[in-house]
Amino acid sequence: VENDNKNELQQLMEELHPADIAEVMDDLSMDEAKYIYLLLDGEKASDVLVEIPENDRRRFLKVLPPEFIASKFIEYMDSDDAADVVAALDDDVKKEVLNEIEDIEQAGDIVDLLEYEEDSAGGIMAKELVVVNTNWTVATCLKEISRQAEEVDEIYYIYVVDDAEKLKGVLSLKKLILNNTNTKISNIYNPDVKMVDTSTRQEEVAEIMDKYDLVAIPVVDEIGRLKGRITFDDVIDFVREEAEKDYQMVSGITGDVEPGDKVWELLRARFPWLLIGLLGGIMGALVLGSHEDALSKVTELAFFIPLIAAMAGNVGVQSSSIVVQSIASGVKDIESTSKKLIKEISVALLTASIFAILIFIYNYFTQGNMDLTFSVSISLFIVIIFASFFGTTIPLILHRLKIDPALATGPFITTMNDICGLLIYLMIGKMFFEFL
Amino acid sequence: VENDNKNELQQLMEELHPADIAEVMDDLSMDEAKYIYLLLDGEKASDVLVEIPENDRRRFLKVLPPEFIASKFIEYMDSDDAADVVAALDDDVKKEVLNEIEDIEQAGDIVDLLEYEEDSAGGIMAKELVVVNTNWTVATCLKEISRQAEEVDEIYYIYVVDDAEKLKGVLSLKKLILNNTNTKISNIYNPDVKMVDTSTRQEEVAEIMDKYDLVAIPVVDEIGRLKGRITFDDVIDFVREEAEKDYQMVSGITGDVEPGDKVWELLRARFPWLLIGLLGGIMGALVLGSHEDALSKVTELAFFIPLIAAMAGNVGVQSSSIVVQSIASGVKDIESTSKKLIKEISVALLTASIFAILIFIYNYFTQGNMDLTFSVSISLFIVIIFASFFGTTIPLILHRLKIDPALATGPFITTMNDICGLLIYLMIGKMFFEFL
Repeated sequence: VENDNKNELQQLMEELHPADIAEVMDDLSMDEAKYIYLLLDGEKASDVLVEIPENDRRRFLKVLPPEFIASKFIEYMDSDDAADVVAALDDDVKKEVLNEIEDIEQAGDIVDLLEYEEDSAGGIMAKELVVVNTNWTVATCLKEISRQAEEVDEIYYIYVVDDAEKLKGVLSLKKLILNNTNTKISNIYNPDVKMVDTSTRQEEVAEIMDKYDLVAIPVVDEIGRLKGRITFDDVIDFVREEAEKDYQMVSGITGDVEPGDKVWELLRARFPWLLIGLLGGIMGALVLGSHEDALSKVTELAFFIPLIAAMAGNVGVQSSSIVVQSIASGVKDIESTSKKLIKEISVALLTASIFAILIFIYNYFTQGNMDLTFSVSISLFIVIIFASFFGTTIPLILHRLKIDPALATGPFITTMNDICGLLIYLMIGKMFFEFL
Repeated sequence: VENDNKNELQQLMEELHPADIAEVMDDLSMDEAKYIYLLLDGEKASDVLVEIPENDRRRFLKVLPPEFIASKFIEYMDSDDAADVVAALDDDVKKEVLNEIEDIEQAGDIVDLLEYEEDSAGGIMAKELVVVNTNWTVATCLKEISRQAEEVDEIYYIYVVDDAEKLKGVLSLKKLILNNTNTKISNIYNPDVKMVDTSTRQEEVAEIMDKYDLVAIPVVDEIGRLKGRITFDDVIDFVREEAEKDYQMVSGITGDVEPGDKVWELLRARFPWLLIGLLGGIMGALVLGSHEDALSKVTELAFFIPLIAAMAGNVGVQSSSIVVQSIASGVKDIESTSKKLIKEISVALLTASIFAILIFIYNYFTQGNMDLTFSVSISLFIVIIFASFFGTTIPLILHRLKIDPALATGPFITTMNDICGLLIYLMIGKMFFEFL
């Protein structure tokens, strides 16, 4: 494809969807991608840019001159995407790009959007929307919409404001079409509109849109003036990212790991948790070392070290992730903390009893040593209760301290459970063997 | 609130959003919920029912008579939600309910939808949509839309079909409004429409809608006739559910755990993985038992059992979940399997070297025994390489065998890695101590 002539390539690209072009470019080298990219016309080029993953986009923008970025992309983009692109630029380039934008209104919108915190509703909203006044008629509305609609890709809802720009309600295109052209907007709009504040946190926006199945939600300022809208695609991305974050936490990976990452990026993401694992292992060695006498006298005690450690780890992770999930799905209010704890304690008691009995039966028939049989069963029972307790309470405490409770599902708690488990096991083993 | 009079309650409910009523009902007992529920009028009642979590809904429907279900909910529901509700009923109740539905068209739609597989596009689509013919003019269209729009909650796109009902393209309401009423549809519709087949799998539908940021996607049959549409809210739910499934897999929980679950449901979800952990622990005990001589001669060998097992488990889970995530995000084509393996091997070699050196330094300064120091370091090196290798290849193999690769992140592989790690450690330890 590379060696074909320009026109053919250009023709081909025109037929492709921006998301597909971005995918093709991801397969190519930087130079090839740049070559192809420069063949695109403005609107397409900006659409493709939005589809490129953030890390690659940053690298890509570095090789392009500021006035080119301004004229070729920013002018064609929706304000929210444009603000994202501009925010990713280095400070000096950012200024240059902003000054190169010819469309003053667009430049103003971008500057406005950059003011908001990145993870607030203001930070993710777009300024493009269709607004009508309560006093207009359907006919005026239709005319205004044709004028405004040029800037907006998709009209999901038409927002209705009063003379002070305060949001009064929404109007569906459907209603507009179904009504007589002389009807006043104030008679047909729906005043029951869900809205969020510019400072509302991203999580909450996603929750509201998901709960009420909204395609788009309007964003207002402190005094209720319409400032922008957030669309469903931002929410899908957010839901996906959040889930990925929790997933990576529980599997012991820090930060964003993307399929195209370099070796050292992967190493950096995996290193911290492994280091905790190593330190935990060393502490485990110290615990075992302090009970050297018992271990050397009764070698069989060592046989069940992996079992105790594994069960402690598994139970702990299960408990934490159930709590983390219930926090994440926003149902914290439905079940009270105490009810949650009582349920978890019942589950822990049952689990502990079942597995203590199972391992007792196994050891009773395979090990000659009754001291060992009792030590392992009793330890396992206590260890499971402990691990459940830690696993449940620590995420709840983290959540109350406004720390991401998903931290508790990571190797940190597992490691802690391992060590506590070993300690309990050795103490109980020692008791049994010294006692008899 | 319970003791207040009916009218006041009814008034209050009318002002609440269905999703909010469902949330309130979740807090109440079954009888209270039922009492409130029966106060709702038909349309609201059906909207609330859709918002109730599936398990609760099933229980709830059991206490209501079939003709009541038919007349009070099904008639007011979108066909996709109605089909979901009907599918959840017991077979005999299902038939009765279907026969009680007075709106024959609705009953037919539901029966049609029940034919499709649950996780195919056909199984999640709704039959309600706005269709226009290519030969119509904008004016005819507007009239037709007013007629059809009554059934459809939200018009996202207007689908354009030919005389044989084959899907030709889409038309946005925006375009319709902006054009002259005499314009023919064939001149203004957009023929470049993304569509899926009724048999397309749910995952793929979600991927396509997400990639192209679609609010809704049309579903066609084998010969291209328009059959239904899938909307963005189904995709958000799907993305969330898939993420939850992977998350539960990696944390060792089987099946759906919902915050309101009973103790025995929680126990059942956690039991299988813990049982695997127990069996793994027993196998670990057997492995250690078969090296009893070495362990009793050199007790210090036992000290590092937790370290080896923990590192093997952590590295394995990290590797698997990176692979699982890259498969889930659908980028399998971008990096070839061999490239992925080479990268993973580099990461593994680096990780193994770093941690082997770290533990060597630690042991060199704290343990007097050089044999032990070497055994631990060399074992750790080999164990990390092994665990990375298993962690990477097993999900890839599962994926090729069309088994959910997320299985590999569960305790099964962790347990296997633990045991292999122990075996390697003991073999190397024995070699060192016998050799010298």
